[in-house]
Amino acid sequence: MTQPSAKSPMTMAQIAAATGVSVATVSKVINQRSDVAPATRERVEKALAEQGYILNRAARSLRQGHSGQIDFLVGQELNSYYAFEILRGVEEALLTTDVRVVLASTHAHREREQQWRQRLSAGAIDGAVLVLADKRSFYLQELHRRSIPSVVVDPFGELGPQDLSVSATNWAGGKLATEYLLSLGHRRIAALMGEPAHPCTQDRLAGYRHALQMADVPVDPSLTRFADFHVEQAHQEMAQLLALPELPTAVFVGNDEQCMGVYRALAERGLTVPHDMSVLGFDDMPYAQWMTPALTTIHQPLLEMGRVATKMVLRLIADEPVETVRVELATPLVARLSCAPRRRRKGFRILPAG
Amino acid sequence: MTQPSAKSPMTMAQIAAATGVSVATVSKVINQRSDVAPATRERVEKALAEQGYILNRAARSLRQGHSGQIDFLVGQELNSYYAFEILRGVEEALLTTDVRVVLASTHAHREREQQWRQRLSAGAIDGAVLVLADKRSFYLQELHRRSIPSVVVDPFGELGPQDLSVSATNWAGGKLATEYLLSLGHRRIAALMGEPAHPCTQDRLAGYRHALQMADVPVDPSLTRFADFHVEQAHQEMAQLLALPELPTAVFVGNDEQCMGVYRALAERGLTVPHDMSVLGFDDMPYAQWMTPALTTIHQPLLEMGRVATKMVLRLIADEPVETVRVELATPLVARLSCAPRRRRKGFRILPAG
Repeated sequence: MTQPSAKSPMTMAQIAAATGVSVATVSKVINQRSDVAPATRERVEKALAEQGYILNRAARSLRQGHSGQIDFLVGQELNSYYAFEILRGVEEALLTTDVRVVLASTHAHREREQQWRQRLSAGAIDGAVLVLADKRSFYLQELHRRSIPSVVVDPFGELGPQDLSVSATNWAGGKLATEYLLSLGHRRIAALMGEPAHPCTQDRLAGYRHALQMADVPVDPSLTRFADFHVEQAHQEMAQLLALPELPTAVFVGNDEQCMGVYRALAERGLTVPHDMSVLGFDDMPYAQWMTPALTTIHQPLLEMGRVATKMVLRLIADEPVETVRVELATPLVARLSCAPRRRRKGFRILPAG
Repeated sequence: MTQPSAKSPMTMAQIAAATGVSVATVSKVINQRSDVAPATRERVEKALAEQGYILNRAARSLRQGHSGQIDFLVGQELNSYYAFEILRGVEEALLTTDVRVVLASTHAHREREQQWRQRLSAGAIDGAVLVLADKRSFYLQELHRRSIPSVVVDPFGELGPQDLSVSATNWAGGKLATEYLLSLGHRRIAALMGEPAHPCTQDRLAGYRHALQMADVPVDPSLTRFADFHVEQAHQEMAQLLALPELPTAVFVGNDEQCMGVYRALAERGLTVPHDMSVLGFDDMPYAQWMTPALTTIHQPLLEMGRVATKMVLRLIADEPVETVRVELATPLVARLSCAPRRRRKGFRILPAG
C-alpha cells in the first residue's frame, strides 16, 4: 500500500467506520483477499482511493522480490508468425499462473533500450524469454548483470556456458527430411535453406549432407542455396535452382513460409507439386496443411518451445532447479501431399481428370 | 524511490561520497535522467541497491497516476494471425513511447479474471486495447467501472454510446468485392462468409446484396453460406457450394484464411482458380499475395486498426480529446490473380504453356 500524498490519510479504523465494515474487511481489501463480497470491496476500494491510497500490488510484489511480469524479447521485428507461435506458447505456460507477459523488444532503438534498462532497475520484470539471441545480445548481457532469470528460444548464435536455451533438433530434422526424400527414390535433392548465419540452418544442412553421404549420394554444391527465412527471397532462389541445366527432383526448404515462394516459382515454370518436384518444408506452421498441395514438412514445436522456456523461467524465478541448460525438442516429419516418388520415365505424365 | 527495509539507509550525500560522485549525479540516477555516463550510473545504482533502495519506476509512475502499461485483451484465444496483426499495430504505436503492452487475456478463467481485476485495482494498467468485444464484455464493464480508458478493435457486437471503437468499412468492402466480380462478368456469385453473428459478416453481406441489387442480379439464397473464420469449416462449406446443381462462377469469401480452404475444395474437384472459379478474400494477410494463385482480396488494415486504437488510448490516458467515438478505416480492393472474367463459352479452354 502506497501513500501518495503528504497530507495525513484516514486510518484503517476510520475507513472501516466510514464505509460501515469491519477493520478486518478493510484489511482484506487492502491485501486483495478473495473472501470479500464484490459490492463491499468496491465500496472500500472507493473510500481508500478517495483517501489517496493506491492498492499497489506491483509495489508490494517488488518488496517481495516479484513483479509478476516477464518480458518477451525478440531479436528482430515482430513480423513473423514464427515469433507469434513462440509467444502463444509463452501465453499458454502462463495461463495457470498470475504472471503476465510484456512485449518489451527494443527494436535496437536507443531510447527504448534505455527505457528497458530502467524497467530492469525498477524491478519491473522477474524474468525474460528471448527469441533469436546469442551471447552478444544486449538483452542477455543486461539481464545477467542484474541476475534476472532468462531463457533463449532458438539461439541465433553461440551462447555462454550459463545461458539456458530451448531449441529444436535441427540436425536430426535435416537428416530426417533428406532420408525421407531418399526413400522416395530422389537422388538430386536441393537444399534451399534460410539465413546461413543462423545455427539452425547450419545444423539442418549438416543433417542433409550426412543423410546424402550415408546413402552414397554425392553432395552437389550447386544444389544448396540460401535465403532469409521469408517468402520473397525463397521465390528468387528457387527460380535460380530452376535455371540449372539439370533440375533437382526434390527440394528441402528452410521453412514453410519459404515453401510458399517455392510453390510460386514452380507454378510460374508450369511445374506441379509433387508431380514435377517434391517440396519438403520445416516448421509445420498451422497453414502448412492448408497449402495446396498440403505441405509435407518437419514439425518444429515452436509453441512447445515457448512453453518449455517459460516454465524454465518460472522455475528459476521460484528458485527451483532446472534439469538441463540446453533443451532440444524433437522434430518429427509430417507426411502430407507435397512429396512423391521420383518419376523414372521422363516425359511420362498422367493427365489430370476433368 | 521506495525504501523497502526498516533500517535507516544512507542519505543521498552519503551515497554520493561513497561512490565519488556529486549529489546532483545521485539525484539524476534516482530520477533516471539520461545524462549520466553508463559506468557512473551502474556504480550509483549498485550503491543504492546495497542500501536497500529500489529504483521503483513503476511505483513512482503510480503516484503520477501512470503505470506505463496497457493491456491487450482478446475476446477469445490468441490463435489467429488476425489478432497477431492487430497486436503488431499496437506494438508499432508504442514504439516511440515508453508504454509497453501486456498480454492480459483471461480466457474466461475465473481465477485469471480475479487476478486481472486485482491488476486494475492496483493501478497496474493505464488503458486497454480490446479485440472482438461488445458492450456485455467483462473487460469493458470492469474498465468502465474504474474509468480506465479503452478502445475496442473490430467490435463483435453492439457497443454502448460511450464505447470507442476502430473497425473497417465492412459494408463498403463487401460492396466493392461484389462490384469487382460483377465487372468481370460474373452473375452467379456466391458469398461464403464467416461467423454469422459477427457484425462484420452482416455488414459485408449487406454490401454484397446491395451491389447485386444495384446490378439487377437477383440474390440467390442458396449461394450464401456461413462458417467460422477458420480454414476447416470454409473447406466444408465450399464443398457444399460445389454440390449445387448449378455452380457459381465466383465466390466472395469471409477472410483470407478461409480462402485456403476454398482453394483446397476446388483442387479436390479438379477445378482451377481463376479459370473455373474466381475467388475473392477479405483481410489481405501477408500470405495472401503468396498463395498460388495470388489472392485478390479486400484489404482490411488490421495493423493500422491496432495502431489507431492504441493512439486513441494514449490520447485518453494523456487526457487529450479524441476526435470521434467510432473510427472506420477504408478497405480497398487488392487485385491479384485469383479473379478472372467469366468464361462465356462452356468447355473452351486455353491450354497452359509447357
